[in-house]
Amino acid sequence: MKWLNEIRFTADGLVPAIAQDAHTGKILMFAWMNRESLALTAQEGYAVYWSRSRNKLWRKGEESGHRQKVLAIQLDCDEDVILLKIEQEGGIACHTGRKSCFYRQLIDEQWQTIEPVLKNPDEIYKF
Amino acid sequence: MKWLNEIRFTADGLVPAIAQDAHTGKILMFAWMNRESLALTAQEGYAVYWSRSRNKLWRKGEESGHRQKVLAIQLDCDEDVILLKIEQEGGIACHTGRKSCFYRQLIDEQWQTIEPVLKNPDEIYKF
Repeated sequence: MKWLNEIRFTADGLVPAIAQDAHTGKILMFAWMNRESLALTAQEGYAVYWSRSRNKLWRKGEESGHRQKVLAIQLDCDEDVILLKIEQEGGIACHTGRKSCFYRQLIDEQWQTIEPVLKNPDEIYKF
Repeated sequence: MKWLNEIRFTADGLVPAIAQDAHTGKILMFAWMNRESLALTAQEGYAVYWSRSRNKLWRKGEESGHRQKVLAIQLDCDEDVILLKIEQEGGIACHTGRKSCFYRQLIDEQWQTIEPVLKNPDEIYKF
């Protein structure tokens, strides 16, 4: 997988990854990948990230069922950011039960919530 | 500007920022901000980043003229990523003269260019 060698990972071996809904263009989440997770993403066709908090591979949806089918993998001009065009299974990317993690907007100098919770997180992670 | 205190900057005092075309949803670029550049972005209404390579504030478009008018500033669930909804002046965000920095896609195990150069970089940066 020679294409992996063209990516400039950080000193920690990571690269930022943006997940965008392939159909609506909505930005759903941002996470990090290492070389292995990016290789697995390409191989398996579903997003695999590197969890910095848990220090392990994170197959998105492994607990919630909200997997991300990858339709395209794109790279930026500096070769240090990945963009995934995805289909979000279950329609929820955020652990808060919202469609997108970017659910707050700066309005009147305050972060105001602009997206509804679609599913109670307790229900998402109960199994 | 109390809202700035809610952002979790890295140990280096930075936060990743994604710039998305407010009208088409196209992801145009990815850069970093520090507290000052984010405050200036909100104040001035145009994207100001922190250039890690030049180690200074970077008013996007200061050389190219390709400024980014900010229509919305959004924050993710972990308070550590910023999303800007912007209008891209000149229609070109990338220093290569393309609309978006994410102009390569993984096809047949190769990074293939999928977007045209709209303007020669020599012409963009000649002044």
